[in-house]
Amino acid sequence: MVKIGILGYGNLGRGVEAAIKKNSDMQLVAVYTRRDPSALSICTEGVPVKSTADLDTGKEDLDVLVICGGSATDLPAMTPKYAALYNVIDSFDTHANVPVHFANVDKASKAAGKIGIISCGWDPGMFSISRVYAHAVLPDGKDYTFWGKGVSQGHSDAVRRIDGVLDARQYTVPVPAALEKVRSGENPTLTTREKHTRECFVVAEEGADLARIENEIKTMPNYFADYDTTVHFITADEMKANHSGLPHGGSVIYSGESSDGTRHVIEYSLKLDSNPEFTGSVLIAFARAAARLNAEGACGAKTVFDIAPAYLCAQSGDELRAHLL
Amino acid sequence: MVKIGILGYGNLGRGVEAAIKKNSDMQLVAVYTRRDPSALSICTEGVPVKSTADLDTGKEDLDVLVICGGSATDLPAMTPKYAALYNVIDSFDTHANVPVHFANVDKASKAAGKIGIISCGWDPGMFSISRVYAHAVLPDGKDYTFWGKGVSQGHSDAVRRIDGVLDARQYTVPVPAALEKVRSGENPTLTTREKHTRECFVVAEEGADLARIENEIKTMPNYFADYDTTVHFITADEMKANHSGLPHGGSVIYSGESSDGTRHVIEYSLKLDSNPEFTGSVLIAFARAAARLNAEGACGAKTVFDIAPAYLCAQSGDELRAHLL
Repeated sequence: MVKIGILGYGNLGRGVEAAIKKNSDMQLVAVYTRRDPSALSICTEGVPVKSTADLDTGKEDLDVLVICGGSATDLPAMTPKYAALYNVIDSFDTHANVPVHFANVDKASKAAGKIGIISCGWDPGMFSISRVYAHAVLPDGKDYTFWGKGVSQGHSDAVRRIDGVLDARQYTVPVPAALEKVRSGENPTLTTREKHTRECFVVAEEGADLARIENEIKTMPNYFADYDTTVHFITADEMKANHSGLPHGGSVIYSGESSDGTRHVIEYSLKLDSNPEFTGSVLIAFARAAARLNAEGACGAKTVFDIAPAYLCAQSGDELRAHLL
Repeated sequence: MVKIGILGYGNLGRGVEAAIKKNSDMQLVAVYTRRDPSALSICTEGVPVKSTADLDTGKEDLDVLVICGGSATDLPAMTPKYAALYNVIDSFDTHANVPVHFANVDKASKAAGKIGIISCGWDPGMFSISRVYAHAVLPDGKDYTFWGKGVSQGHSDAVRRIDGVLDARQYTVPVPAALEKVRSGENPTLTTREKHTRECFVVAEEGADLARIENEIKTMPNYFADYDTTVHFITADEMKANHSGLPHGGSVIYSGESSDGTRHVIEYSLKLDSNPEFTGSVLIAFARAAARLNAEGACGAKTVFDIAPAYLCAQSGDELRAHLL
């Protein structure tokens, strides 16, 4: 059994917990929280909720600690800290800061003789893998990533911070015409606005100035100003009934030539009922690899690029070759 | 530079040759043939055509030998033979015989301290990789593979062997309704007939009994009897104008649950202008990995499951993390 600890019990932590239940070789040992452990109850019966102070001792009996924190401030501190004590894995997704985060985790985990896998989920994660395979096979080509239709939690939060907004859900939607162009293999140049639209569902306070809210959303820099955005005002009941899930997905489409005029299109796509549960499932598959690699003596920081597919599966090499090759 | 030899110069050998031209770190050293080398001229200028007798000496200056032979009789003999002398790679695709072939190559390449990668292309190959990742991430699910629309060379050959047939091209076509069902996530049970149809274009001898030919095709065991098959008789000119390419492709679709009722659909699909050129491109990416793994001291038989994606790319780990993660 691979003994797993979960640090942080938000949507992602619960997604990891769900994934463990689907893998018979995985065992949840404890959930660790920065809050008061006695105030947190978890889905899995008989598993203790502990304080991060217990983790800090370095004495917890874990094969892998799955760190479920935010990329802005949690993971840059937490992953290197715990990489010095345990095999760790995170879903760090601030692209520009990957080199620094990788270096910090690498230093800590190498010194400790542990494995630290960073940036593991679907993007970065499965989408990254798809990009690398495509570039490797057809170096003369171009990749496109489309996200959605799905809920962007960051954009939903941004709308919720607007004065007069009680609740909000933002869907990122790929533009069908852009998808078609890319799938046809013509390798178009596409602006941000041409690739995705944004659709917001907003519950406003009674008497709020809806025109002002809509304008504040549509003109918000970084989040919405570069996109065509639609805003729908709905009731709290409609929000609960129709927008309580966290579906997501998207496609990586690669088009490249093997010789002049001979073109191939590769597409990897995901349709996910639950973004955090799928991300949790990816984390658990790579947690298995972390435990195995470390048992073989490997240490240091890794990404999804550094791990052979066979390490992710519970089955033996013989079984994989017989049934999945 | 990775020094590549190509053994066999049919469609696949020429596909490998094309792929080498698209990879600036790859160099074609020689093409080896069992025929008279002086009778063979190849596309790349300045590269010698040699006899397989030269290979047999074990003295050729190659990093990797790409073996482009048939799976029925060529590869079972050739890959283990040359695995004892060089790093080798093949596209062995007789599924039932993979365990024996793997064991034979493993024994030879381990004894020689070389790497032997088998069953590398798109199926087995990229499709296999897609199946393994999906099963690893969502163990509670099911995979479906659809082939086409594309030319099956084995089925085309089978039709050509019928009395009165001058030329033939067979397209394998996925059934749209089956694709839709699988994409919807309902995990249907599908018969062979429900998944694919077969479409044949046939040039018959003048005066041949077309009804007999059509009947022989449609009732041919293993190849056609289990499918709904359409037969079109065309002229040699039409064949040349409309069916001279070898396009292919298909999809691996996986549908699985991360918790009860929470479903995710993963799809990997290929649309290929040229089956042999794409297969050649995959072989060259994995040939790079073979050379690197052997330079690190690894030996023995490998499949696509055993090789981390980063080994396939010319770029460094830093570059991959910065641009493709």
